[in-house]
Amino acid sequence: MHKNNLPPLPALPENKTVESSLALYQQRVEQVMAKALAAQPLTDPELLAAMQYSLLSGGKRIRPFLVYAVGQMLGAEPLDLDAPAAAIECLHTYSLIHDDLPAMDDDDLRRGRPTCHKAFNEATAILAGDALQALAFELLSNHPYQQVAYPKRLQMVQQLAKQSGYSGMCGGQAIDLAHTNKQMTVEALEAMHQLKTGALIECAVQMAWLASPATASAELAALVRYARALGLAFQVQDDILDIEGDTATLGKPQGSDQQANKATYPSLLGLPAAKAKAQQLFAEANDALSVLPYDTQPLSAFAHYVIARSF
Amino acid sequence: MHKNNLPPLPALPENKTVESSLALYQQRVEQVMAKALAAQPLTDPELLAAMQYSLLSGGKRIRPFLVYAVGQMLGAEPLDLDAPAAAIECLHTYSLIHDDLPAMDDDDLRRGRPTCHKAFNEATAILAGDALQALAFELLSNHPYQQVAYPKRLQMVQQLAKQSGYSGMCGGQAIDLAHTNKQMTVEALEAMHQLKTGALIECAVQMAWLASPATASAELAALVRYARALGLAFQVQDDILDIEGDTATLGKPQGSDQQANKATYPSLLGLPAAKAKAQQLFAEANDALSVLPYDTQPLSAFAHYVIARSF
Repeated sequence: MHKNNLPPLPALPENKTVESSLALYQQRVEQVMAKALAAQPLTDPELLAAMQYSLLSGGKRIRPFLVYAVGQMLGAEPLDLDAPAAAIECLHTYSLIHDDLPAMDDDDLRRGRPTCHKAFNEATAILAGDALQALAFELLSNHPYQQVAYPKRLQMVQQLAKQSGYSGMCGGQAIDLAHTNKQMTVEALEAMHQLKTGALIECAVQMAWLASPATASAELAALVRYARALGLAFQVQDDILDIEGDTATLGKPQGSDQQANKATYPSLLGLPAAKAKAQQLFAEANDALSVLPYDTQPLSAFAHYVIARSF
Repeated sequence: MHKNNLPPLPALPENKTVESSLALYQQRVEQVMAKALAAQPLTDPELLAAMQYSLLSGGKRIRPFLVYAVGQMLGAEPLDLDAPAAAIECLHTYSLIHDDLPAMDDDDLRRGRPTCHKAFNEATAILAGDALQALAFELLSNHPYQQVAYPKRLQMVQQLAKQSGYSGMCGGQAIDLAHTNKQMTVEALEAMHQLKTGALIECAVQMAWLASPATASAELAALVRYARALGLAFQVQDDILDIEGDTATLGKPQGSDQQANKATYPSLLGLPAAKAKAQQLFAEANDALSVLPYDTQPLSAFAHYVIARSF
């Protein structure tokens, strides 16, 4: 029996497809997050409703997938992965709420539903994002870990703070905003994405490593290389879908990057070269995995899933 | 010689006045924060400038004062107080930046200067606040503590996350916004302030306790009681100054609460009763201190300073 009535994590050898393990990891992290929200006092029901609305809105849960899949591969205790998986999704969700605000990207639709400030109001959306960032650090620091030593728990906090702050995600978003309606080189675009989305994807892998018994720094370096290629591949595919996808499947308006006059891989390289770039990053992710003495098949399959997805 | 070229903390017995130790603590925390900003990469100079603009703008530094004064009283290593002092001020500053936004309190003036979104722009102000929250947790988790055991370091993160998030400061701000232009009882006003400003003031004391060798939970309880009375006294005096103060001394427009039609202690109780309330809270703060086996004179003097201040 599993503690806390959480759904069991899929055992690695039983994984038949990425989709099936992704679904199980999604279920699991959603229960962890729902439980965290349910444990909150009724301080302000409206604010809590806004946090819940955005957090439990059926995202892809890419970052929790990485925490669980990498952590399981490295032999971590499944219960020890719940806090970093939920924390990183809280962090990611807060960034989406704030990015969607009128003063930022001004988006009306997210994950197929009105954005937080549309469903509630701007002030509530700002506060919901702020409170979700705090919740991420609360979950990470207040978890009944089974086998993670205190210094490593603190390092998880450190990683999440650094990768989500000025020198990571927030910095990337600032660079992105500064370049709207401006020319951008492929190198600058890549550096921006490395911070805006790459930093948290890298952080997912680092936290999984910290939660596991693994100690070889060469293995961490390989995993970080995998995460960087994966994060960029994810972004290239996002750009491709902005052109080739459709609004209903995407859950956000197709063509919104073009409309916002944002630099994208297809706009800078052309569509065929952007697709080749995605394939090249997939190869790089696999190359990084090849040095690891574990069953890396689920991570390789996930990288393929990321560049082949249509949503 | 002190490490890191930080100004020395005032030795307790040498404290002549609250003002002189407040000035020394202010200098110290400002150097710690300036150093933290100077260590950041040049990811986005505009965002960094906005963070710096708001963080190093000469606030009263009430929360760092409490961290340093309580920590010193309890025998903490001065260097161990730098991280919680700087972290709580980053947290407080982010909350001011976001509270001032047009969608929130829509204020143009803060600490005598244009608010962050006026000096920069709204998107940059939102991101500067977000990044300062992350920086708070980075400082707290990444500090070279001398004598604070790992479990206590993690508890500091926990306290800061909890007291600043939904069940603390963010929740209080949500309640405040929900009651603009609405009637409010004194009890509801008090509950709101307890979260909006009280939670972080309590957190300052808790972090100082965690950073110190103190272990008696009855002492922590007394300190928390002191912090609650102090936090509320601070707020009552703020409300009084909104009526009796002047804009130049306050650094923000006098009468702004009345203009925003906000419930305040004077508006609910009348000015004389509000002043009596401040005195009563001062007495309560002193009563809480009376059980502590330390030299509590600096904390008592600080409580008096808080209700007697004109800015």
